[in-house]
Amino acid sequence: MTPLTLYYTPGTCALAVRIALEEAGVPYQLERVDFASGQQRTPEYLAVNPKGRVPALITPHGTLTETPALLAYVAHSAPQSRLTPDDAYGFARLQEFHSYLASTVHVAHAHRPRASRWADEPEAQAAMQRKVPHNMTECFQFIEHHYLGDGPWVMGAQYTVGDGYLFTIGTWLHSDGVDIAQFPKVVAHAQRMLQRPAVQRALA
Amino acid sequence: MTPLTLYYTPGTCALAVRIALEEAGVPYQLERVDFASGQQRTPEYLAVNPKGRVPALITPHGTLTETPALLAYVAHSAPQSRLTPDDAYGFARLQEFHSYLASTVHVAHAHRPRASRWADEPEAQAAMQRKVPHNMTECFQFIEHHYLGDGPWVMGAQYTVGDGYLFTIGTWLHSDGVDIAQFPKVVAHAQRMLQRPAVQRALA
Ligand SMILES: N[C@@H](CCC(=O)N[C@@H](CS)C(=O)NCC(=O)O)C(=O)O
Ligand SMILES: N[C@@H](CCC(=O)N[C@@H](CS)C(=O)NCC(=O)O)C(=O)O
Repeated sequence: MTPLTLYYTPGTCALAVRIALEEAGVPYQLERVDFASGQQRTPEYLAVNPKGRVPALITPHGTLTETPALLAYVAHSAPQSRLTPDDAYGFARLQEFHSYLASTVHVAHAHRPRASRWADEPEAQAAMQRKVPHNMTECFQFIEHHYLGDGPWVMGAQYTVGDGYLFTIGTWLHSDGVDIAQFPKVVAHAQRMLQRPAVQRALA
Repeated sequence: MTPLTLYYTPGTCALAVRIALEEAGVPYQLERVDFASGQQRTPEYLAVNPKGRVPALITPHGTLTETPALLAYVAHSAPQSRLTPDDAYGFARLQEFHSYLASTVHVAHAHRPRASRWADEPEAQAAMQRKVPHNMTECFQFIEHHYLGDGPWVMGAQYTVGDGYLFTIGTWLHSDGVDIAQFPKVVAHAQRMLQRPAVQRALA
């Protein structure tokens, strides 16, 4: 089988997919997209992902984008790795968590580096950037209390692809001006993540 | 079995879930949440969904939130209705579409009615609102060209829960100051949707 190819930029949400691929043990290649030179907006990259974003995953059936979709695909590609709950309710709970991260938490963060998506005026962009620490704090308080209740993992006893997604977004808190130490369960979760060989390989 | 209960506000993304429930033919009850009086922020509703948003779905196993998760759950609850592709790639493509709608298109729209989420200053909120028509136009151009290629449905020949989600967000274009007529495939898709008895019941 042709290995999967992950289009990837270090420090982005694509790390969540790389962790999932390492945990799943499926063969994959990395293609690095250089944001510093604006490679995500070149015609070559837009031919891969017309959205001009990472991650994108080339599969034998076609290209997939959107982190939650890639995580579901990788988990389903390696069922023996048990990276998602099997039952319909557990699977939906994991999708709920992914969807919250993608549509609320990632978006709250993006108002700092990508404020220009939502307003043209520099003053308005600065106003959005000023509110990022408040919004990211609110999101991580929510995660601390509502998703990391029992632990050790987001889905409880079972480690899933959602854990790598939370870990990835957690690495943005410092640059967003938020002290992760106020969320003890998030900190403990990140420490458990760093002990996993798959996570170490993904960060290498 | 206890029927499902959908917390719902007319005109919101909860319509996508109501359409899915009608298509699936599973029994459900509706609980209306009144945004005009701020019911989504009352202690009673926050006990149902601490996010203070709709939709929320009460299932026999617990409460689920986030539109993409609810759509996956409803589709899996009624496999005989074939509301999602069966294979891992097709399923991931549908999740990709849901995730794009939730994290990019819905968010682009929300900068009009909910600009205060992302900045406190009235001038900044007005700047965000001014950019909504541009961003929603860009999103629907993308959908027109990249997701409604072959049709008649988003996933091609198979009608899925993603069609109700697209239809729902399409109903926001007019109030966002975008003329839907510039997207002929989106218009034709909405017309096909309006002919479906399940959609008619959901809108009733
Ligand atoms: N909803 C998408 C968002 C993808 C996204 O915004 N990726 C960022 C990196 S974390 C990106 O590629 N930004 C480049 C740009 O905006 O130019 C997902 O969850 O995958
Ligand atoms: N990511 C959530 C977003 C839910 C959401 O923002 N719902 C809106 C209605 S479309 C809402 O409840 N807004 C009420 C408020 O912000 O007070 C989803 O996709 O379900």
